[in-house]
Amino acid sequence: MASKKNATDRYASRGVSSSKEEVHAAVDKLDRGLFPNAFCKITKDYLTGSKSKCNVIHSDGSGTKSIIAYLYFKETNDASVFRGISQDSIVMNIDDLLCIGALEGVVISNTVNRNAVNFPAKALAELINGAEDFTKKLCSLGVKTYSGGGETADVGDLTGSVVVDSCAVAVLDRKKVLMPDGIDAGLSIVGLASYGKAKYEDFENSGIGSNGLTSARHDMLSPYYRKKYPETYDANTPKKLVYCGPYKLEDKLPESNMTVGEALLSPTRTYAPVIAKIVKKHPKLIKGIIHCSGGGQTKCMRFGKSVHFIKDNLFTPPPIFRAIQHASKTSTAEMYKVYNMGHRMEIYCKPSDAQKVVDIAKSFGIDAQIVGRTEPSGRKDGKNHLTLSACGEKIKYVQS
Amino acid sequence: MASKKNATDRYASRGVSSSKEEVHAAVDKLDRGLFPNAFCKITKDYLTGSKSKCNVIHSDGSGTKSIIAYLYFKETNDASVFRGISQDSIVMNIDDLLCIGALEGVVISNTVNRNAVNFPAKALAELINGAEDFTKKLCSLGVKTYSGGGETADVGDLTGSVVVDSCAVAVLDRKKVLMPDGIDAGLSIVGLASYGKAKYEDFENSGIGSNGLTSARHDMLSPYYRKKYPETYDANTPKKLVYCGPYKLEDKLPESNMTVGEALLSPTRTYAPVIAKIVKKHPKLIKGIIHCSGGGQTKCMRFGKSVHFIKDNLFTPPPIFRAIQHASKTSTAEMYKVYNMGHRMEIYCKPSDAQKVVDIAKSFGIDAQIVGRTEPSGRKDGKNHLTLSACGEKIKYVQS
Repeated sequence: MASKKNATDRYASRGVSSSKEEVHAAVDKLDRGLFPNAFCKITKDYLTGSKSKCNVIHSDGSGTKSIIAYLYFKETNDASVFRGISQDSIVMNIDDLLCIGALEGVVISNTVNRNAVNFPAKALAELINGAEDFTKKLCSLGVKTYSGGGETADVGDLTGSVVVDSCAVAVLDRKKVLMPDGIDAGLSIVGLASYGKAKYEDFENSGIGSNGLTSARHDMLSPYYRKKYPETYDANTPKKLVYCGPYKLEDKLPESNMTVGEALLSPTRTYAPVIAKIVKKHPKLIKGIIHCSGGGQTKCMRFGKSVHFIKDNLFTPPPIFRAIQHASKTSTAEMYKVYNMGHRMEIYCKPSDAQKVVDIAKSFGIDAQIVGRTEPSGRKDGKNHLTLSACGEKIKYVQS
Repeated sequence: MASKKNATDRYASRGVSSSKEEVHAAVDKLDRGLFPNAFCKITKDYLTGSKSKCNVIHSDGSGTKSIIAYLYFKETNDASVFRGISQDSIVMNIDDLLCIGALEGVVISNTVNRNAVNFPAKALAELINGAEDFTKKLCSLGVKTYSGGGETADVGDLTGSVVVDSCAVAVLDRKKVLMPDGIDAGLSIVGLASYGKAKYEDFENSGIGSNGLTSARHDMLSPYYRKKYPETYDANTPKKLVYCGPYKLEDKLPESNMTVGEALLSPTRTYAPVIAKIVKKHPKLIKGIIHCSGGGQTKCMRFGKSVHFIKDNLFTPPPIFRAIQHASKTSTAEMYKVYNMGHRMEIYCKPSDAQKVVDIAKSFGIDAQIVGRTEPSGRKDGKNHLTLSACGEKIKYVQS
């Protein structure tokens, strides 16, 4: 427990609430929409007034990953690194939308809040064009996603670098909404790898995604950045927690062909082409999909009822996560709560369907495997819980 | 010209590009949508695929006005001040949408990027509940606007305080889109006051809106805030430009019943109920509507073709703008480029229709008057230009 407390303290000292409890407390009283259990909030079809349809409007962004790109840009003058940040911001939205079955007709808007002195026009152009190009690429892959515009605000008193957010909207047929209600005992959990190189990707992906990047940045990167870029951290954070890691961006990541900078900046993979193909080929296969973003491998506990999730055949964590764990001395239990650790999307299906999912993922060059299964909760309080086997440990988590 | 250059330098030193030229350069190559001249970008109906409809997805936020609320909150511990910031963020979107005729069926998402150490849960709850309550209030006024959800990110390394943004979406009948193409010679320009107390408002409004707040904050507020709240300004800004004004938030605003804090924080007025009534009662009256936000009273030059805009009967600027001008020693020409100076919405109509607009505005308790007229450009290059009479000066602006 000591290490867990330490981890929470470290988050708090860095201005991050580890569990989003505060945020949940603030929003829990709000209307939860048409399908309260769904992965994203879904409302009536206010946009066109159809009783058979519904709306989703979803916002998320690249978070503090933009700061790593900023450091890279300042060190190398290569602004193209911000194209990956555009992708991060968009994928954090569209891959959540996959989990409710919003696979096409998604319109996106991007918002950039920047410090115009530190973050110049050429970097801004890469962000904006990167977002446009990424949506076009998605279209070329059959995932009909469109850019509807965006906004740039010069707010140097609000940020020393750049904040990148996106909003994604879709109108769905109510009957086609994917619900996690099918997550029950007796299913296989198929994980889709977050790392490697998908056929539709241009470069190898480290698997990092866009979660936990405040910790990863400070715990991995060297005090060199603390001295040189004071605009990239909160002045109130204790200095020993600011850029207290062993690496510079250009250093080789252990057990990898990537540099530390490349690995930390790997754009968040989208699984949209894979999920679209699964739904098209096997419309009734998916009993639930979970985007393992905030909450990592423990996010599943928020879905299904009275389920014991057993993940006992997880992917070996790719090098970036091993390096973060080593540098930060974070417990394995905590690592799996913050990072995806190897798969960022998981599909719940009948055991007899699992191979079909694996085959489709592999047809896109994405590794996949049965990472676990579901059983009845077995707890007297009926709570969902998770038993996760990793790094020789058997770790138990209970739904809070 | 000296003072104009000074103003530009002051913006640049504070991390703000005064003219958004950089931003325009970055986005000018992008697809401008279905109606390239429209006030907002409008796309094909990607959301539902109807050929008779179109989509708008619009993003904007409260900008650095949130910092003034932050200062107020820190000084008074009154978090309810953030309800006004939610309104600012939403109105900056929906009042732009009014200008294309998107008057109902608008769905909104709100994004909060906060420093979780400095900006606590109770302030977050006011922001979130304030947004929900404001959309409900709009609905009660017949303006069908709905909250579809939102996102809060803890990004203490990106901001010392809080960044508040919104995204607003609508599906429109293509035939009902309001276009500024009707802005031609021979029209009256009716201005709708930005100050006073509308019947649907709970408090008197200073007229401030959400533009130019970086300048207003530093030029109005005292060095007291510089020393006490270093998290609210860019460390690179020359100290003489940071909180270099005469006032504290609780000081009385000259020639007003408001304090300086109340005046700077007056929530951006929405004109939605007024515009909805005009469109309903007189569907063909409006030849153009301009939301005088960024660009202030010069924004009109971006619309219509070969037009000479003459604004020679403007409202007397309300006290907040007089105080900002006095404190900042900004030229009148520059003030009218940054602030609305008295009316934030203007309607172009036949002279014989102007009184109808005035009457409808006044029925909501909002002052309105014919502020000017349009004539043929008369310039050899055919450019739009503006002659504005204010404070005893006749000021000429030409479309860039």
